[in-house]
Amino acid sequence: MSLNLQYESIGKNFVQQYYAMFDDPANRANMGNFYNPTDSFMTFEGHQIQGAAKILEKVQSLRFQKIRHIVTTVDSQPTLDGGVLINVLGRLQCDEDPPHAFSQVFVLKANAGSYFVGHEIFRLNIHDSAQVF
Amino acid sequence: MSLNLQYESIGKNFVQQYYAMFDDPANRANMGNFYNPTDSFMTFEGHQIQGAAKILEKVQSLRFQKIRHIVTTVDSQPTLDGGVLINVLGRLQCDEDPPHAFSQVFVLKANAGSYFVGHEIFRLNIHDSAQVF
Repeated sequence: MSLNLQYESIGKNFVQQYYAMFDDPANRANMGNFYNPTDSFMTFEGHQIQGAAKILEKVQSLRFQKIRHIVTTVDSQPTLDGGVLINVLGRLQCDEDPPHAFSQVFVLKANAGSYFVGHEIFRLNIHDSAQVF
Repeated sequence: MSLNLQYESIGKNFVQQYYAMFDDPANRANMGNFYNPTDSFMTFEGHQIQGAAKILEKVQSLRFQKIRHIVTTVDSQPTLDGGVLINVLGRLQCDEDPPHAFSQVFVLKANAGSYFVGHEIFRLNIHDSAQVF
């Protein structure tokens, strides 16, 4: 395989679909379809989760009545195996809380003419977090 | 190749080395060594750059006297080709400016017992940026 020159539209379309599904309680249970049964890795606020079933379980265990993701930047790059690396920055509004900045990274892997999320890393971006280095 | 189980220490060591070199004016010119002559992709504030020489040129063109990166989270994941995906969040202090939140993604690719940066995405995280989606 080689570079996919449609990486930018693939990235934007994915991001739009992903958050539309996440933010819609009637549709959220379908998010398992974004992932591979075994080869999908998620790191959610530092917790490692592997495989579609466990990732969906995590998503469904999050506690809120209403959630809305506001996306402010989407940066995509083609990977050498035909996939797409995506970095998303945005703000997250949960119920009546003030909005939180978040960062979310995805690696889409090409598979039989479609894509699944091979890697995903989610973090709230807490401005005054303690220094690591 | 397969999953590298040392991904967490590889990610942390890389991040520490990278910012130590970036923040040291006497050492910054050596940053080209992190990249491959052709197979390294950087997206810097939305601008796409490819290959070690052009990436180093970009890094050296940034205008500041003093810079300091404060890293607040490092999340790493192993990739199926023996590499490591890294997401860094932190604060950036340039000269006497107030600190800015930043997000930086790296994909380290394994090559002959070492690693190079195959992908890198840098963004300042501007909390009130306009909505894309």
